Amino acid sequence: MAATGLPAVVPSVAALPEEVTIWEVGPRDGLQNEKSIVDVRVKLEFLDRLADAGLRVLEATSFVHPKWIPQLADAEELLAGLSKRDGVAYPVLVPNERGLDRALAAGVEHIAIFASATETFAARNLNRTLDSQFEMFDPVVTRARAEGLRVRGYLSMCFGDPWEGVVPADQVVAVGRRLLDMGCSQLSLGDTIGVATPGQVEALIAGFGDPAALAVHFHDTYGQALANTLAALRSGVSTVDSSAGGLGGCPYAESATGNLATEDLVWMLDGLGLRHGVDLAKLADTSVWMAERLGRPSPSRVVQALRG
Amino acid sequence: MAATGLPAVVPSVAALPEEVTIWEVGPRDGLQNEKSIVDVRVKLEFLDRLADAGLRVLEATSFVHPKWIPQLADAEELLAGLSKRDGVAYPVLVPNERGLDRALAAGVEHIAIFASATETFAARNLNRTLDSQFEMFDPVVTRARAEGLRVRGYLSMCFGDPWEGVVPADQVVAVGRRLLDMGCSQLSLGDTIGVATPGQVEALIAGFGDPAALAVHFHDTYGQALANTLAALRSGVSTVDSSAGGLGGCPYAESATGNLATEDLVWMLDGLGLRHGVDLAKLADTSVWMAERLGRPSPSRVVQALRG
Repeated sequence: MAATGLPAVVPSVAALPEEVTIWEVGPRDGLQNEKSIVDVRVKLEFLDRLADAGLRVLEATSFVHPKWIPQLADAEELLAGLSKRDGVAYPVLVPNERGLDRALAAGVEHIAIFASATETFAARNLNRTLDSQFEMFDPVVTRARAEGLRVRGYLSMCFGDPWEGVVPADQVVAVGRRLLDMGCSQLSLGDTIGVATPGQVEALIAGFGDPAALAVHFHDTYGQALANTLAALRSGVSTVDSSAGGLGGCPYAESATGNLATEDLVWMLDGLGLRHGVDLAKLADTSVWMAERLGRPSPSRVVQALRG
Repeated sequence: MAATGLPAVVPSVAALPEEVTIWEVGPRDGLQNEKSIVDVRVKLEFLDRLADAGLRVLEATSFVHPKWIPQLADAEELLAGLSKRDGVAYPVLVPNERGLDRALAAGVEHIAIFASATETFAARNLNRTLDSQFEMFDPVVTRARAEGLRVRGYLSMCFGDPWEGVVPADQVVAVGRRLLDMGCSQLSLGDTIGVATPGQVEALIAGFGDPAALAVHFHDTYGQALANTLAALRSGVSTVDSSAGGLGGCPYAESATGNLATEDLVWMLDGLGLRHGVDLAKLADTSVWMAERLGRPSPSRVVQALRG
């Protein structure tokens, strides 16, 4: 455990899952929130390096209209150029039926839809009501399932909303259950503005009853992401979203909305003795390499420390 | 809970202390690790502002020889100029008998000594063996207690050591118990290089048996500080060291050895519904003010988010 070493393995005295699935969102959620538009060849190398580092779920891109997210306008080209590995899933974000058409044409096997837990964010982000967003998702999920695809449901604003304030857990549970009932095999609970604290995380997960289909997606805006992850793991969740190098969160930007850095998560999981399959040194090398391409340092504390 | 609001109050389902004492180390541990040497008038205003924000323990300065820490060479001047508030403690760090002479002459009522949990750090930082460091501390503690002072013991390298790697918990417990037996009323367990993870924290605290005399001092070098704090609170510790604005940790420096930011801690405590007495907005204002004096942004995520 020198500066370039590994943490001491001391499992927690509280119950934790033995194995954690890291859902790597850097190539999609990370890059869509970076100012730079990254060349598709760099993205392909990034995905290869992440797979080399042992990550087994790589959210590759999004079929949102390029007008909204020019950073991911190359989704078709990316998927055409991708050398898929055995044992690695490459889910893509699909906002609507048009997106599903594109995803199916590109041979995608695993999609994610993006729902809102609040009325205001549904209106602003989806131009729908909380209720009518399901009319948009239902044909997407139904057709995707009929085509044999797996579907993840993202649920945003699960803890706080910039316009509505605290989001009641029962409201989140109600919306989340509809996504699961509709055919989503997994529900990712998003703290989109990064305000949640560990008690709130535990209460929401407990509200769902069974954590087996849940994942968590924390942003580190208020520095709470890893403490919240610990609370989620102790509540029985075993899938955690994170972004290599903290990609997507620009420190000292006007709004630091960064994802939890995968390296910071891996450091904790290593110390807790939980299996995850990731080679931390290789992953940090990859994040340093990507940070050089983006022209700014990685906001991951572990990446900074290992490279210090 | 808008961007400038407060977290939702949802107490954790696991046992936590109802009240947490924040031991603010910014004026001492923070400023001694900043490159800039801050004017004594700025330090005095800083201490006043921290007291205004509701902090009740302010580690004010250190009587280490100015040759080693020029940033705190003004300890006498600072204490002479300080307007002490009722209900606020102003402990100072005292390394040896010469330091105690200076502290007593300055009218200090509360000191802290600084010990090592490892052989190598004792040699490098104190020029002593693990065992012989007590010969240096014993007359300091004995005399301080005889003069009616309270004494805190800092114990550094409690989890990992850059030269020795993982530090065995039983070694830390043995050294820590000697400090308590010697007359320290509190023992602050320091993760000096920031490598600890929550299971390790729980195991060490459990090793002491009774957590009542323990405090924790986490560095965020590997992003683990707040998760470790949560683990410590759940293990019964109710005194947490932190540094306003994350002072002392320079992001993107060669070694980011930053203290846990008090604001990030307060955000979590607020969400967990634990009493601490700090006004977060006032504190963040103070950290912004100090960051301007240091000519660089605060590394605290909460400060960045509130000011975004």
